[in-house]
Amino acid sequence: MTYCLGMLLDAGLIMIADTRTNAGVDDISSYRKLHCLADDKDRCIYAASAGNLSTTQTVLGLLREGVPTGEDESLMRTIHEPTSMFRAAQLVGEAVQIANETVGRALASIKISGASSILLGGRIGKGPPSLYLIYSAGNFIECKPDVPFFQIGETKYGRPILDRTITPSTSLAEAMKVAFLSFDSSIRSNLAVARPLDLIVMPTRAGAKPFTRRIGVDDPYFDDLSARWGDLLHDATAAIPDPPFMAELNGH
Amino acid sequence: MTYCLGMLLDAGLIMIADTRTNAGVDDISSYRKLHCLADDKDRCIYAASAGNLSTTQTVLGLLREGVPTGEDESLMRTIHEPTSMFRAAQLVGEAVQIANETVGRALASIKISGASSILLGGRIGKGPPSLYLIYSAGNFIECKPDVPFFQIGETKYGRPILDRTITPSTSLAEAMKVAFLSFDSSIRSNLAVARPLDLIVMPTRAGAKPFTRRIGVDDPYFDDLSARWGDLLHDATAAIPDPPFMAELNGH
Repeated sequence: MTYCLGMLLDAGLIMIADTRTNAGVDDISSYRKLHCLADDKDRCIYAASAGNLSTTQTVLGLLREGVPTGEDESLMRTIHEPTSMFRAAQLVGEAVQIANETVGRALASIKISGASSILLGGRIGKGPPSLYLIYSAGNFIECKPDVPFFQIGETKYGRPILDRTITPSTSLAEAMKVAFLSFDSSIRSNLAVARPLDLIVMPTRAGAKPFTRRIGVDDPYFDDLSARWGDLLHDATAAIPDPPFMAELNGH
Repeated sequence: MTYCLGMLLDAGLIMIADTRTNAGVDDISSYRKLHCLADDKDRCIYAASAGNLSTTQTVLGLLREGVPTGEDESLMRTIHEPTSMFRAAQLVGEAVQIANETVGRALASIKISGASSILLGGRIGKGPPSLYLIYSAGNFIECKPDVPFFQIGETKYGRPILDRTITPSTSLAEAMKVAFLSFDSSIRSNLAVARPLDLIVMPTRAGAKPFTRRIGVDDPYFDDLSARWGDLLHDATAAIPDPPFMAELNGH
């Protein structure tokens, strides 16, 4: 399992991924899930992956070394060629399909799921950042303002805080805090999600460079945020009036 | 899907269940999932069920009309006979096994899962309330103070708030608010969980009567709690300092 989150806000794109990978609870490792696919003059593209590690590494390998074009194996396309993020998502979808047909089929023969999904975010040319969710069949959807975030992997524990707070107008700093709280919830409830976390922030404004950072297992800001949140939740719960029927119960 | 929560606190037992049942998103109904199995002078026992409705209704029918004893079909045991909650959990476990062997096997032949699980809570005699989680195989575990709650059904969305706030010393009123917030999160994120909610509160103190209540689809207290929580989460997020690296980003 793993947990990856992408948010597409007016102010910019945020992507975060944990690094835990496991084959059972007795075989746990740390692998980077957030990858820079391109950081050129005209394009800046990142991918976060969840699912079978051998499948997602195959997808990344294909994108790096070339996705075959039809039946002519000498014609290869890389992530440096698409002229839009939509075309880039199509190329990643093709790589996912190829990985599923090869690695996925082999894994299916021993009854292991090779399914994997990818968050693809970035910008090509002068357009604003965009964000895509590529499913294990290679089909994909684009993030739109109605729900300005995508999750893959262990999505449920970290979802309620997102549903209640994230809108397109949320600032990057606010969204980053909420993203950390979403990860903190997932980490507390599922051993298969863990720090370090890798993140990338790509502001929408022209000329702003993307910013990457790794949040380590003993990051003091994250530890402080987690501790404060517990206290703040207690205070918030206390601020809500008691259910009216509890008075009736005490009266018995 | 459905969501049921049981909390075993120093002050008493709380059980809550939603009422949604569905076969696909285009076949949705409302069924009571929290049932009073016994309300006698010497025992007060409640069950909340999640999973296939035909299986759980069979379990409840067996407990009401009699669970067969071995091969002699004239010997039937009901929930009114066990002399402890442990023995009651064993009887419910047997009923679950029988339902799985009959209804469950028939459903398996058409590739539908008949799996169901049960929260069993209550008290027999003068002992304090206790709480059991009975799995679909009929085996069960008892709630203990290390984690003073059990969830069945759609458990993940509503879990983080429980992990962060519920301890054995939490008051009944506080626990009830947290339980409602846990349900509110689940209802917002999953169409397969919905009001009305049924609840029972059984105080530990001697002589206190259990209290039952249905929270309707337009319950004003629940609506107010849900609205306040959104605002309180915004305030709490704002009260956490911004990540230090965001200043660095703005400096670019």
